Amino acid sequence: MNTAIQRTFVMRAEIDTYQEPVVYLKADSAVCRSEGFAAQTRIWVQVGNRRIVATLNVVTNGSWLPKDFAALSESAWRRLGPQPGETATFSHADAPESARLIRAKVYGDQLDRGGFRLIMRDTIDGALADVELASFLAACAARSMSSDEIAQLTLAMVDVGERLHWGARRVLDKHCVGGLAGNRTTPIVVAIVAACGGLIPKTSSRAITSPSGTADAMETLMPVNLGLAAMRSVVEREGGCIVWGGSVGLSPADDALIRVERVLDFDSEAQLIASVLSKKLAAGAAHVLLDMPVGPAAKIRSPKAARTLSAKLAEVGAAVGLNVRLHMSDGAQPVGRGIGPALEARDVLAVLARSPAAPRDLRERALDLAGHLLELGGMAAGSGRERAERALDDGSAERKFDAICEAQGGRRTPPHAAYTASIGAAHAGTVTSIDNRFLSKLAKLAGAPRDPAAGIELLVHLGDRVERGSPLMTLHAETAGALQYALDYHAQHHQLIEVEA
Amino acid sequence: MNTAIQRTFVMRAEIDTYQEPVVYLKADSAVCRSEGFAAQTRIWVQVGNRRIVATLNVVTNGSWLPKDFAALSESAWRRLGPQPGETATFSHADAPESARLIRAKVYGDQLDRGGFRLIMRDTIDGALADVELASFLAACAARSMSSDEIAQLTLAMVDVGERLHWGARRVLDKHCVGGLAGNRTTPIVVAIVAACGGLIPKTSSRAITSPSGTADAMETLMPVNLGLAAMRSVVEREGGCIVWGGSVGLSPADDALIRVERVLDFDSEAQLIASVLSKKLAAGAAHVLLDMPVGPAAKIRSPKAARTLSAKLAEVGAAVGLNVRLHMSDGAQPVGRGIGPALEARDVLAVLARSPAAPRDLRERALDLAGHLLELGGMAAGSGRERAERALDDGSAERKFDAICEAQGGRRTPPHAAYTASIGAAHAGTVTSIDNRFLSKLAKLAGAPRDPAAGIELLVHLGDRVERGSPLMTLHAETAGALQYALDYHAQHHQLIEVEA
Repeated sequence: MNTAIQRTFVMRAEIDTYQEPVVYLKADSAVCRSEGFAAQTRIWVQVGNRRIVATLNVVTNGSWLPKDFAALSESAWRRLGPQPGETATFSHADAPESARLIRAKVYGDQLDRGGFRLIMRDTIDGALADVELASFLAACAARSMSSDEIAQLTLAMVDVGERLHWGARRVLDKHCVGGLAGNRTTPIVVAIVAACGGLIPKTSSRAITSPSGTADAMETLMPVNLGLAAMRSVVEREGGCIVWGGSVGLSPADDALIRVERVLDFDSEAQLIASVLSKKLAAGAAHVLLDMPVGPAAKIRSPKAARTLSAKLAEVGAAVGLNVRLHMSDGAQPVGRGIGPALEARDVLAVLARSPAAPRDLRERALDLAGHLLELGGMAAGSGRERAERALDDGSAERKFDAICEAQGGRRTPPHAAYTASIGAAHAGTVTSIDNRFLSKLAKLAGAPRDPAAGIELLVHLGDRVERGSPLMTLHAETAGALQYALDYHAQHHQLIEVEA
Repeated sequence: MNTAIQRTFVMRAEIDTYQEPVVYLKADSAVCRSEGFAAQTRIWVQVGNRRIVATLNVVTNGSWLPKDFAALSESAWRRLGPQPGETATFSHADAPESARLIRAKVYGDQLDRGGFRLIMRDTIDGALADVELASFLAACAARSMSSDEIAQLTLAMVDVGERLHWGARRVLDKHCVGGLAGNRTTPIVVAIVAACGGLIPKTSSRAITSPSGTADAMETLMPVNLGLAAMRSVVEREGGCIVWGGSVGLSPADDALIRVERVLDFDSEAQLIASVLSKKLAAGAAHVLLDMPVGPAAKIRSPKAARTLSAKLAEVGAAVGLNVRLHMSDGAQPVGRGIGPALEARDVLAVLARSPAAPRDLRERALDLAGHLLELGGMAAGSGRERAERALDDGSAERKFDAICEAQGGRRTPPHAAYTASIGAAHAGTVTSIDNRFLSKLAKLAGAPRDPAAGIELLVHLGDRVERGSPLMTLHAETAGALQYALDYHAQHHQLIEVEA
């Protein structure tokens, strides 16, 4: 509903509120007085034909904001993009129908594709408040959703975003479900598959609750914020790409939900499945290989939980028209050395370059997955693994990776952290356990993924012999505060890596 | 955790962000650079020995904020109360243990008093983000909680607030569960019971999802924001009071949760029960009469739902040591004429003054409840209703009400709205239905409860005969925008009051 229009000049508030759009108005402005707006009211702001819902902050005084001007936070400014001289109009944002559907979901109703579509549409438009999105996410987590309902949610997510089509070609994709720290196989797999002539239009996510997503890590090596047209041209030229899903708009609703999930530090089974499969559908993939690490260091801890999730993933996949194949892998400990964007990127480069110091476990995992994917794509019946190994070892995967970097806008050098600290073993012995949850936490406290150079270099694996004082890991941080913060946390959780004498 | 302290001068941002504390720092300030803070980070802000968690908004430019100053939003300023020359220190706000407990609740764990107490404590301290509170509320709503678990939640709420004790005297209280628009019996019941010599330390809430709470309505007649000491002295002098629960700090956690429930527009059974009973416990009441209107116009629609809720209320009451008695009443239509703070207050005054125009239904309901309460208090065995009627009709209830107003700080005159619009019947006939949900919505769109004079004067009841064009209701608003907004809504939902020919 949209009444009582007031035209107002707009200016930049020069205040960064992250993704939440905020509009600042004077308490005694004509708009506030005539509309009866009060602080924290959610209002429609329209500039030209662009319209968003923003939260109102009332400026009670202060000469920085002239009385009949509206100031926009950086996020609101970006989304409305006012041109010089353009004015804005304001109106009450009525509670949308989707808010009622969210309440129904909280109280146990099943929603269909149309209902989910309304929620996803309003999520993208910012018409739902963050607390409403949080209650939706909690309801999806608290009540088990049927495969059919998750399929409806998946299709609704695809409905409100862009979608790629690749004609008659067989389109492959891979995804790691329930991450394992440092398990950065994707760039290697994409390079191998594309080098072998496969078509793999890969979009990756940024970290939700982990210290780094594939997109965060790859951004230290090349631009990943490509638009849809640019992504399409990279894939048409090189057969593969590694771009951030959020920038191509293939699943904008999921991106908005992830922003809230990151604060809540949880993602539910239903959201996980819908998030993964909606992106594959939108990217135009038909054959999807899902890597699922299972073990104490992974999100999926037991084979039983893995089987339940696998069954649901395959069911929902079939319901939305995807051929989903599951590959369980060992989730006993982190993979590679780096945990954090730049540190993980360097592991990937080392594997591609066949460096003697390259982490062996990362190489083996990438080859396994690439092999399965080549077979799924009908490109190497029964001999996928050998074909993958050849492409990696003869350097064609490395050349393909470089070509993709160039096609995406040019190769970058991953940054080094300004502050590092080495952590040594308290006594000699054998490494018997590595607590992945605390390790991820530690990397996040050090600044990952927001600070790309931040994170952890893990210098030992399970079973390694260490001497007293020999280094277990190196902390990397971009600020002294973050480094100290991580060190304090480590001091309280020094059992993070256990060494038995 | 509290590391890397930075002392910084503070100033008022003069920005009203409602209840969410926000701190504004320059992007290039020493604090942001050394701590690695980014927009929307949650940080501890300490001034003297007062400490809150606030959301960081980063000021990217603008001369209003000097580089090494921190500006505080109005709510942060109020809560920290910096004295001239005092500085603030900042540190990272680690995710609290209570956030982990909320996730456990979402995934189905039962929490105990200690767990709930942590969540309630952090809710009060602002250590939990609004989206975390929203996920907690949604989890409580989505998963049915046992009476025992609700009792634990109730006791936890009491643990983190103040609590009143009244010695050996028998302390009474009443509460209306699941409101009915206009059903403002509380002030009348308190006046009657106190006039008869009973002890009734009544705290009331502000509106959660309705157009007015008792506290909102009574605030147009007298100050209701009394501190605990002031409340105690009013009750010791007059036997009763009508104060806002939020101001006395008897259930500060509940007040913080209600702020989020208001945005979500729902309150769950568990929250409802814990909210009501924790306040009664904290006020020192032992015998509680719960009025539960049942019918299409009330929150509780069916006798079956009423019985389920009643049983749970009595069970939880017994578990926490309260003698709870239920009184079901007719919830077929709104009570009285006014819907909205000032309009409801005028109905109350009319009943107390025995005005011939006073709404009969409101008088009858108040007398019923006062009668039951006098019997529950052992003050009128079997003749409660007659005793109540005598106190109302001989003017002693009115005099007591005036005395309470005086004791709370002085009588006020309820405001009149600047804008009104009359809505007439489209055709002649009999009033066959009044949609309470749409009516509440309409009153809220007109500005209630934020604008105290706003709301609806309902001029008909079920069964009334009306002519074409004869007035069904009058809309009241404090701004032209709000009035227009309500009128637009009514135009889309004109079946709100149905008249059959």
